[in-house]
Amino acid sequence: MTNTVVTGCLIIIGNEILSGRTQDTNLAHLAKELNELGVRMVEARVIPDVEQTIVATVNECREKFDYVFTTGGIGPTHDDITADCIALAFGTDLEMHPEVVELISKREAPPEVMESRLRMARIPAGGTLIENPTGGPPGFQMENVFVMAGVPMVMQAMVTTLDKSRIKGGDPVRSRSIGAYLSEGQVAVKLRAIQEAHLDVDLGSYPFYRQDGYGTNLVMRGTDEAELDVMLEKVRQMIIDFGAEPFES
Amino acid sequence: MTNTVVTGCLIIIGNEILSGRTQDTNLAHLAKELNELGVRMVEARVIPDVEQTIVATVNECREKFDYVFTTGGIGPTHDDITADCIALAFGTDLEMHPEVVELISKREAPPEVMESRLRMARIPAGGTLIENPTGGPPGFQMENVFVMAGVPMVMQAMVTTLDKSRIKGGDPVRSRSIGAYLSEGQVAVKLRAIQEAHLDVDLGSYPFYRQDGYGTNLVMRGTDEAELDVMLEKVRQMIIDFGAEPFES
Repeated sequence: MTNTVVTGCLIIIGNEILSGRTQDTNLAHLAKELNELGVRMVEARVIPDVEQTIVATVNECREKFDYVFTTGGIGPTHDDITADCIALAFGTDLEMHPEVVELISKREAPPEVMESRLRMARIPAGGTLIENPTGGPPGFQMENVFVMAGVPMVMQAMVTTLDKSRIKGGDPVRSRSIGAYLSEGQVAVKLRAIQEAHLDVDLGSYPFYRQDGYGTNLVMRGTDEAELDVMLEKVRQMIIDFGAEPFES
Repeated sequence: MTNTVVTGCLIIIGNEILSGRTQDTNLAHLAKELNELGVRMVEARVIPDVEQTIVATVNECREKFDYVFTTGGIGPTHDDITADCIALAFGTDLEMHPEVVELISKREAPPEVMESRLRMARIPAGGTLIENPTGGPPGFQMENVFVMAGVPMVMQAMVTTLDKSRIKGGDPVRSRSIGAYLSEGQVAVKLRAIQEAHLDVDLGSYPFYRQDGYGTNLVMRGTDEAELDVMLEKVRQMIIDFGAEPFES
């Protein structure tokens, strides 16, 4: 059974992540949410707040992947340059989006503050809004590129508004996992045989080291639930044959 | 004052990170450690366990950046293909490295298990070892590419062995940070002016949302400690002028 894989790529824009000061959590969250829409996250890039890098990366990735998502750089300060870069990447201009202007103008502020906040109403011509349920300014979509906030709470809220009307995915990937206190070396040969009998399923092996010993988590990923169940049974039996106790992982 | 920036790129190899099942922590750790060696992390990529993708990414990045680091895919199972891919990328062969063979052979195992474990002794011709203080098999270096384990504990141990004999860095980036319960919109204009007066320092603005209110963390990064101190004072004064209380962040 083959099915078309619809691919996604996340571009994480932020010096803050690259310096190690902030730990990204958007990739893991978005990967799981996109999977439910049938989009497979197949690459992520973390890049700095540098115009040339952002433009080049967006243009490369929007050609290469079905959907591209960006997080970060859409606030009101000087280091928020994502909207400018997306406009450059698409060869278009930023326009004041009346809906966003209205939203931002509702909350009163001194002229200087309002001017900065209105920077967030600049949307590349032709872009459509990605609603922001936290009440703040929205993200936007340009063709297959979805531009979202970097703050996880805001980004997650935006993701809840994405649905099949905007994202045409394929079959979601389903997974099974099981663990055992067996080393990767012990199970390697048997695992390879199981993998080779199920080429449509991806069988991953991940060692762990805990206080009470070391072992391996085995994760199967594919779109065919019945095949996943058959494979899980084989892996479970393999663990038992090695004299170990399989556990949920 | 300008100084040459020595650049680094991390390639995170692993379906497990892309699926969202596992949260990467290697980027943040490596970024901080590399900075102490004078290497600036300027890009990271998360890619799947796919030969063609790994080879292409490694070849692109080793041209583009001064140093490239990879994590993941160096274990004994069928899904551990990083060494094979690095050999392909460099157009060379894998060879059984006598030192690693000796290390692995020390721990007795049935022939089938030993055979799998010995996969980890296959090092691309010309590669030099990256010691693994946890006692397991080492990583390796091929020219400017450093291949390390994906398990954070092991990766971190390997990183402790990297020093200035192998990595020729520039000046480490130093940072100052300060926070306030002021919105990004409020500080945006003043911040931009401060940034424009200190073009060698990178001034980042990061909003936060907490139970007790929202605010902004301001982070300055550069190599000149004296300039950083001057800038920090300006930002602190700006916060006070807005009638807010600066806090350590």
